[in-house]
Amino acid sequence: MSIRPLADRVVVRQLEAETTSSGGIILPGAAAEKPNQGEVIAVGPGRTLDSGELQPVAVSVGDRVLFGKYASTEHTINGEEVLIVRESDILAVIEQQDSLEKAA
Amino acid sequence: MSIRPLADRVVVRQLEAETTSSGGIILPGAAAEKPNQGEVIAVGPGRTLDSGELQPVAVSVGDRVLFGKYASTEHTINGEEVLIVRESDILAVIEQQDSLEKAA
Amino acid sequence: MSIRPLADRVVVRQLEAETTSSGGIILPGAAAEKPNQGEVIAVGPGRTLDSGELQPVAVSVGDRVLFGKYASTEHTINGEEVLIVRESDILAVIEQQDSLEKAA
Amino acid sequence: MSIRPLADRVVVRQLEAETTSSGGIILPGAAAEKPNQGEVIAVGPGRTLDSGELQPVAVSVGDRVLFGKYASTEHTINGEEVLIVRESDILAVIEQQDSLEKAA
Amino acid sequence: MSIRPLADRVVVRQLEAETTSSGGIILPGAAAEKPNQGEVIAVGPGRTLDSGELQPVAVSVGDRVLFGKYASTEHTINGEEVLIVRESDILAVIEQQDSLEKAA
Amino acid sequence: MSIRPLADRVVVRQLEAETTSSGGIILPGAAAEKPNQGEVIAVGPGRTLDSGELQPVAVSVGDRVLFGKYASTEHTINGEEVLIVRESDILAVIEQQDSLEKAA
Amino acid sequence: MSIRPLADRVVVRQLEAETTSSGGIILPGAAAEKPNQGEVIAVGPGRTLDSGELQPVAVSVGDRVLFGKYASTEHTINGEEVLIVRESDILAVIEQQDSLEKAA
Repeated sequence: MSIRPLADRVVVRQLEAETTSSGGIILPGAAAEKPNQGEVIAVGPGRTLDSGELQPVAVSVGDRVLFGKYASTEHTINGEEVLIVRESDILAVIEQQDSLEKAA
Repeated sequence: MSIRPLADRVVVRQLEAETTSSGGIILPGAAAEKPNQGEVIAVGPGRTLDSGELQPVAVSVGDRVLFGKYASTEHTINGEEVLIVRESDILAVIEQQDSLEKAA
Repeated sequence: MSIRPLADRVVVRQLEAETTSSGGIILPGAAAEKPNQGEVIAVGPGRTLDSGELQPVAVSVGDRVLFGKYASTEHTINGEEVLIVRESDILAVIEQQDSLEKAA
Repeated sequence: MSIRPLADRVVVRQLEAETTSSGGIILPGAAAEKPNQGEVIAVGPGRTLDSGELQPVAVSVGDRVLFGKYASTEHTINGEEVLIVRESDILAVIEQQDSLEKAA
Repeated sequence: MSIRPLADRVVVRQLEAETTSSGGIILPGAAAEKPNQGEVIAVGPGRTLDSGELQPVAVSVGDRVLFGKYASTEHTINGEEVLIVRESDILAVIEQQDSLEKAA
Repeated sequence: MSIRPLADRVVVRQLEAETTSSGGIILPGAAAEKPNQGEVIAVGPGRTLDSGELQPVAVSVGDRVLFGKYASTEHTINGEEVLIVRESDILAVIEQQDSLEKAA
Repeated sequence: MSIRPLADRVVVRQLEAETTSSGGIILPGAAAEKPNQGEVIAVGPGRTLDSGELQPVAVSVGDRVLFGKYASTEHTINGEEVLIVRESDILAVIEQQDSLEKAA
C-alpha cells in the first residue's frame, strides 16, 4: 500500500526524539519530545489558485523539513506512523552540507 | 435510490473497525474505533472557482481515501450508512500495490 | 401566494418523520425525528461570482435533496411550513431508480 | 423627509403581527410576534463587486419580502418605524396570486 | 485645524438628542439618547478595490446620514466632538423634502 | 539609526498628553491620557494588492494623523519611543490652517 | 546544516537582551527581556499572489529587523536558537547610519 496525498499536502516520516541531550545527558522519556522535523515521503500535486492555475509544492521527496508544532495529523498506514501536513505549515527545509555542494 | 453529491462533495462507505490489533489481540468494542478511511462510491462535479471555472474532484469512484477525523457527516440512505465529505477534507488516496503497477 | 427565493436559495418541503423503524417498530414521537431530506419546490436564480457572472443553482424543482442538519430556516407561508436553505448547504440529490433510467 | 438607503440595503415596513391564529383564536400580546415579512419602501443602488461592477438589488419597491430573523435593524424616521436590511439577508419574495398572472 | 479623513471614512457631526418626545413629554437625561444620525462634514477619497480602482464615497458634505449604532468612534478636534464612521456603516441618507424637489 | 517601515506601515511620534484641560484646569497624571494623534516620521512603500500592484501610503512624513485607539504598537528605537501603525488604522489627517492655504 | 525557509518566511537570529539600562543600571534576569529585533540570516522566495505572481520578500540577509512581539516561533537548528517569522510580521528595518550613506 502507498499513500498519494491530495492538493498541497505532504506526507512526512517524523524524526525520532533525541534520547541524549547535546551535552550527552540521557533524557527521560517525557523530555525526549519528538522534534517538529521529518523526511518527506510523498507530496501532492499542489494548490489550485483562484485563477485555476496549479501551484506545485515547493518541497520534494527526501527533503528534511521543519514544520509548525500543531500543524500535522498522525496516521497509521501499513502499520507505519506518518504525519500529513499542509505545505503552508512547512516552515523550512533543513539542508545537509553535502546536498548544498551538489546544489551549488 | 442512489445519491448524487453536489459541488465538490464525495460519498464514502467507511471501512469497518479492525476487531483484532496488528499483534493479533482482540480489541473490545470501544477500542475498535472506525478508521478515517473508506471507499468512494460517488463524487460531485467539482468546485466552482471565483473565475467561474469548474475544478473537477481529484478522486474517483472505487478509490480508498483517508480523510480528516471530524470532517464527515453520517447519513442513512436506503438503510445503508454513508459518509459525505468535502474533497478539501480528503487528505490522501491509499493505493493498493496492484493498482500501482497498472498506473505505472 | 407563492414564494420566489433570492440568489442561491432553495425552498424545500421537508419529508415527514418515519413513524415506524425499518424493522417495523413504532417509533415514539421524540424518536421520530424529521429527516434532513425534502422536495425542492422553488429555486433562486443562482449565486453571483466575484466576476459578476451568475452561477445557476444545480438542483431543480421536484428533486429530492439531502441537506445539512442545522442548515435550514423554517417559515410558514400560506399556513404551510417550508424550509429555506442555501444551495451550498445541500449535500446531494437522492435519485429514485426510474428517474435514473430516464436520465440514462 | 424620505430615506435613501446606501449600497445593497433595503428599507422595509414590517407587517403587523397576526392577532388571531389561523384557527381563529385571539393571540395574547406576547404570542403575537411580528412576522419576518414586510413591504419594500426603498432600495439602494446595489453592491459593488471586486471588479468594480455594480450589481443592482434584486427586489423592488412594493415587493413583499421574507427576511432572516435577526437580520434587520429598527429605526424611527418621521415617527414611523422602519427596518433596514441587507439584500443578502432577504430570503425570498412572497408573490400574491394576481401579481403572478401579470408577470406571466 | 481641519480634518481630512482617509480611504472610505466619513466625519459626521452627530445630531443632538431630542429633549421632548414627539408627544411633547420632557425626556430625562438618560432617556434623551443621541440618535444615530448626523451631518457629514468631511469625506475620504474612497475605497480601493482589489483591482486597484478607487470607488468614491457615495455621500457628500452636508448630507444627513443614518448609521449603525456601534459603528462610529468619537474624537475631539478643535474642542468639537465629531464621529468618524466607515462608509460601509452608513445605512442611508435622510433627505429633506426641499432637497428632493431640487434633485427631481 | 533610522527606521524603515515595511509594506503599508507608518512610524508616528505620539503627541504629548495635554496637562491642562481646555478650561485651564491642571489634569492629574492619570487623566492626562496621551491623544491618539501624532506626527508621521516614516512611511512604508505601500500595500500590494491581489493584482500585484503597489498602492502607495496616503500620508506623508510631517503629517499630523489621528489613529484608532488600540491600533498601534510601541517601540523604543535609539532611546526614543515611537508607534508603528498600519495605514488602514489611520482615520484622518489633521490639517493646520496655514498648510491648507498652501494646498489651495 | 543550513536552513532554507519556504514562501515568505524569514529566519532571524534574535538580539541579546540588554543587561544594563540606557542609564547604566544592571538589569536583573527577568527585566532583561529579549528585544523584538534580530538579524536576518535567511529569506524565503516570497509570497504567491492570487494571480500566481511571486512577490519577493522585502528584507535581505544581514538586515536588522523589528518584528511583532508574538509573531515568531523558536527553533533549535545545529544547537543554535533561531526565530522563524512571516514577512508580514516584520514591522520595519532598523538601518545603521553607515549603511544609510552607502544607500544614498
